[in-house]
Amino acid sequence: MDVIEELKRFRSKDIPYHRVLSSMCTIPHPIAVEAHKLFIETNLGDPGIFVGTYELESNVIEMLGDLLHNKRASGYICSGGTEANIQGIRAARNLKRIEKPNIVIPKSAHFSFEKIGDILGVEIRRANLDENYRVDIADVEKLIDERTVALVGIAGTTELGQVDDIRALGKLAVENDIFLHVDAAFGGLVLPFIDEKIPFDFEVKGVSSITVDPHKMGMATIPAGGILFKNEVFLRALEVETPYLTVKSQFTLTGTRPGTGVASTYAVLKHLGFEGMKRIIDNCLKNTKIIVEEMESLGFEPVIEPIMNVVSFKTEKAERIKEELYKRKWVISTIRNPKAIRMVIMPHVTEEVIAEFITEFREVIRKV
Amino acid sequence: MDVIEELKRFRSKDIPYHRVLSSMCTIPHPIAVEAHKLFIETNLGDPGIFVGTYELESNVIEMLGDLLHNKRASGYICSGGTEANIQGIRAARNLKRIEKPNIVIPKSAHFSFEKIGDILGVEIRRANLDENYRVDIADVEKLIDERTVALVGIAGTTELGQVDDIRALGKLAVENDIFLHVDAAFGGLVLPFIDEKIPFDFEVKGVSSITVDPHKMGMATIPAGGILFKNEVFLRALEVETPYLTVKSQFTLTGTRPGTGVASTYAVLKHLGFEGMKRIIDNCLKNTKIIVEEMESLGFEPVIEPIMNVVSFKTEKAERIKEELYKRKWVISTIRNPKAIRMVIMPHVTEEVIAEFITEFREVIRKV
Repeated sequence: MDVIEELKRFRSKDIPYHRVLSSMCTIPHPIAVEAHKLFIETNLGDPGIFVGTYELESNVIEMLGDLLHNKRASGYICSGGTEANIQGIRAARNLKRIEKPNIVIPKSAHFSFEKIGDILGVEIRRANLDENYRVDIADVEKLIDERTVALVGIAGTTELGQVDDIRALGKLAVENDIFLHVDAAFGGLVLPFIDEKIPFDFEVKGVSSITVDPHKMGMATIPAGGILFKNEVFLRALEVETPYLTVKSQFTLTGTRPGTGVASTYAVLKHLGFEGMKRIIDNCLKNTKIIVEEMESLGFEPVIEPIMNVVSFKTEKAERIKEELYKRKWVISTIRNPKAIRMVIMPHVTEEVIAEFITEFREVIRKV
Repeated sequence: MDVIEELKRFRSKDIPYHRVLSSMCTIPHPIAVEAHKLFIETNLGDPGIFVGTYELESNVIEMLGDLLHNKRASGYICSGGTEANIQGIRAARNLKRIEKPNIVIPKSAHFSFEKIGDILGVEIRRANLDENYRVDIADVEKLIDERTVALVGIAGTTELGQVDDIRALGKLAVENDIFLHVDAAFGGLVLPFIDEKIPFDFEVKGVSSITVDPHKMGMATIPAGGILFKNEVFLRALEVETPYLTVKSQFTLTGTRPGTGVASTYAVLKHLGFEGMKRIIDNCLKNTKIIVEEMESLGFEPVIEPIMNVVSFKTEKAERIKEELYKRKWVISTIRNPKAIRMVIMPHVTEEVIAEFITEFREVIRKV
């Protein structure tokens, strides 16, 4: 068999996106795919060769910075949220250079912070959440000590799409002279487009760095994560010398890195513009409301009233429902505290997908 | 202007590969590009959704393991050599869990080990090289102490394409019960195909992990790095729990990660087969010989007789030659010790490219 035919056979075993309600990624926008293909050979690890692609990256960082209230933000397009979070915390750690550093993060932070603690040798202190599943600011304050190098706030938690009180965290950060990293991997490209203005980005005093992933709500191609620092000083804390390259130093985590994510991010943001992005986000929020209404009519209550296009519904049968749906090739996920099923209403989760899903969901809950 | 037209303008500022003699990456093989496009939506961060792509990755790891004398190797396709090296050293560090760990690496190791030391909080001890620019085994032995968690050997140094005496390092590793990581990011897909049999992989007793990057000599699309461990035990040292995904734990550094590198690696290896790969490598070696002859006729002496398609030529004027060539949009690189200009003869550096390059090079050396 021809190798391309073989590959198609493997690919056909993947579950198609229109049956996936668990992922924060989505089908990339057609303009993203077109842009990606043009940059398939590029390597931003060597900016002296890929001069134009590197210039494009500066533009993308400026566009993202602008959206996040800081045109002068420094940063780069990386492999994804984990690298972005590593780099934020690594900068914080390196700026302080103290023994046995710790960071204070919400209990709602993404599991990758566990990885980051292991990788960077930083103790992870998990602050409790309040009744709305936002980080409890008093608890954060209690956990801060002289070895705390960073606070972390989440703008769009993985489980509920909740947004921490970044202003209160910013105040704590300034008062204690601590770095504040905001993980807005998901929310960073949702919150700027919704009507309710929730402060979470560089407009908040004290915010040092932000993770914002174009390959999530930015509909860019994978890999396209983003790390933005308030200014260049923070980036400098990550630099190593690069003897063989066309540049003298490197602040990225990876060496060789594709320009495809830069191109696809640029393409989507430029092609859609603010209004075009807003239309897509609005539609996701409208579809989230439809899901909530359908689920409520079936007796399921959302854990919190959704702020963005992520919603979880309380049920003791969460695991069984997930498994039964998976047998039927529908993918949702579960959360543990409280026990709930979780859905992310990405652009590929259209009204038609929701109607199909709810039909099957009704059958499943009769069975479990 | 249309966004795609805009992107083409940026892309046109990049220096095309046929004027690049400094990179260990190359134009991806056409079959790699075709495979890449089929998998552009895939995300290996969620293997329960991308079931087929994940299965394909197992196949690729087995193929690479087979090539490196260990069909039962465990590992994954990652963002590139830096991630692969981080993960190798992180596994070593986590398996020992001692205070103030150190690793012993050759002075010829890639600059990314500097980054890795910073990221992982591991002291980097650099062993001297012998007169052939291989790591001095006696010096490695001297640097080992009770806090040494890993030795590193290089199979294809960035500067010279030299291969350390991995057997001797393996012996030291076994005697001292230390992890041995081999950075074969470049050489891992060159050495298996050359006539001289240089032991560097899992056939050597003591080798624990190997970095081997398909996006270098494997002509896969970026990103496609590779990290292979001797067996699953080493991989376990990297795991964290993953509450929201379709799998229960994750050993990769990144979360979301593209399936494109897996597909393009598979496509190239399957399509070309061992003989096809060998033909391409042989051709690169033939072209390396041509460059050496041309350069010798111009009075430049190689630092070492090239083992693979990497070669450096001694000259005090290295920096000026590099800069003058760059002004003419030719890219080579330099090394510091000894002062030399460096070239990598990738598949895109054809006989025609070499002829054009040498013509311009003659002019340049008359000027500097």
